[in-house]
Amino acid sequence: MRILGVDPGSRITGFGVVESSGSRLVHLAHGTARAPLDAPLAERLAVIYQRLNEVITEFAPEALAVERVFVAMNVSSALKLCHARGVALLAGSLHHVPVYEYSALQIKSSVVGYGKANKEQVQQMTKVLLNLPSAAAKDAADALAVAICHAHSSALAAKLARHPALALQESAS
Amino acid sequence: MRILGVDPGSRITGFGVVESSGSRLVHLAHGTARAPLDAPLAERLAVIYQRLNEVITEFAPEALAVERVFVAMNVSSALKLCHARGVALLAGSLHHVPVYEYSALQIKSSVVGYGKANKEQVQQMTKVLLNLPSAAAKDAADALAVAICHAHSSALAAKLARHPALALQESAS
Repeated sequence: MRILGVDPGSRITGFGVVESSGSRLVHLAHGTARAPLDAPLAERLAVIYQRLNEVITEFAPEALAVERVFVAMNVSSALKLCHARGVALLAGSLHHVPVYEYSALQIKSSVVGYGKANKEQVQQMTKVLLNLPSAAAKDAADALAVAICHAHSSALAAKLARHPALALQESAS
Repeated sequence: MRILGVDPGSRITGFGVVESSGSRLVHLAHGTARAPLDAPLAERLAVIYQRLNEVITEFAPEALAVERVFVAMNVSSALKLCHARGVALLAGSLHHVPVYEYSALQIKSSVVGYGKANKEQVQQMTKVLLNLPSAAAKDAADALAVAICHAHSSALAAKLARHPALALQESAS
């Protein structure tokens, strides 16, 4: 399964594409969409949309994974982020790519094994898990992390579907 | 000048198109984009985007006017609204339609003459100002109101550009 992870932001939006096959993960691409800082929000959204459109067209992902919004952050920043997030969800939807959401806790636990991991740890672990020659930039690493989280989550769901008895062990552990 | 007003919402997005010539206002269209309530957010955003795209293609507006975000409302609602708002700004931006933002106070003052007007008053005044046979639905009326606000604001700006001395009277009044 090919997964596009997106870390939306009104200034920098990170993206990462990974392919998962069982527990095996292959890195396909990562990068960022950056709009000029002084450009109006509407123009910045167009830059994000066009870049994600290119990535979806090039890699034809079967899933788009994105972090769930949390409101603990500065509200004004969260509102700007949600404009970019809306554009990311739209890009997926217009290409009929189903969207999956994960909490920050789920993403960090899945990638670093620790829900309160910092950005550097996420960069380091995505580098290790995907055999990258060097760590990805923060926004791209966050995007790779949510893609990996979806890969792990889907692999677990598939395993539980094949062996229902494991679900009991899983929920008991 | 042809103006598209948009009142974004993740469930119902209103739109209204008016043409202004000096102080004269002509109503061209209004309506809403409604997605099934049980559809995922990404699908609802696609419905909004596609409807606004159709409207922009049909009417070729020269300006897109939208209410500025206010955070006094429920934060979770504001975050959802901003997903829809991002998609609306994107639709304008991809068609190279410049986006203008007005506060709720500016919009209501411009249309009703009273910054704390309620939704029914906005519906009634948009009906009167645009000679509508019947009042538009609330979301569409709000969209027409922001379009009218931009028309008034642009007409005033044009007047001040022609008669700079008026600017002093205006700022003194």
